[in-house]
Amino acid sequence: MTEPLPIAETSRLIASDLVNGTPVYSNNGEHLGSIRNFMVDKASGRTDYAVLQFGGFLGIGNDYYPIPWEKLSYEPIRSGYVVDITPEQIKSAPRYGEEVPVYDKDYDRRLTEYYQSPAPIL
Amino acid sequence: MTEPLPIAETSRLIASDLVNGTPVYSNNGEHLGSIRNFMVDKASGRTDYAVLQFGGFLGIGNDYYPIPWEKLSYEPIRSGYVVDITPEQIKSAPRYGEEVPVYDKDYDRRLTEYYQSPAPIL
Repeated sequence: MTEPLPIAETSRLIASDLVNGTPVYSNNGEHLGSIRNFMVDKASGRTDYAVLQFGGFLGIGNDYYPIPWEKLSYEPIRSGYVVDITPEQIKSAPRYGEEVPVYDKDYDRRLTEYYQSPAPIL
Repeated sequence: MTEPLPIAETSRLIASDLVNGTPVYSNNGEHLGSIRNFMVDKASGRTDYAVLQFGGFLGIGNDYYPIPWEKLSYEPIRSGYVVDITPEQIKSAPRYGEEVPVYDKDYDRRLTEYYQSPAPIL
């Protein structure tokens, strides 16, 4: 008997409340951590940032790291994302703990400049 | 003393796990229900459907109604969405209960045709 695919993988869509835990890999295929949530533009419905956790990896604990969406590629075969950032980048990246920062223009700019990614379309 | 705005409203972004409960209004300003979740394209990060609950409205109970994203407009002043559909449309709209359907091409087509909205970009 063949196990059916879980619902999440029979669809190109995922429910916004089920993204937590989606695995994240490096370009080299190393398991880095997982998705905590997506930061979605309320007006456009577009995901601007994926918030990652790197539990234990590089000894960096359980902080949350917002990563510009365009740094992620979805890989259906692994049901996860490959993130185009280096361990060096992660080490000094913007992060937060329990207190979620305000994702305002200054924070957008900080993240955009840190990852040298295009600024969000406002 | 003035109450500070809640975090969610100081930002143009919302965390994907916090969309549940966002209010939804009709074109006439009537409170219809609330957002249950967003259905997000895993590859593009784009929200294709908002899933709505119309608890009690029209006597239609607690089913979930996926609505094409382009039918919704965000209204910052009400911290909610206006949905461009009629009570008539809601009454016979595609819906589900506890068992979430597979959002495959057939379901996309069904929703697209029902709401006469453009097909999702695959």
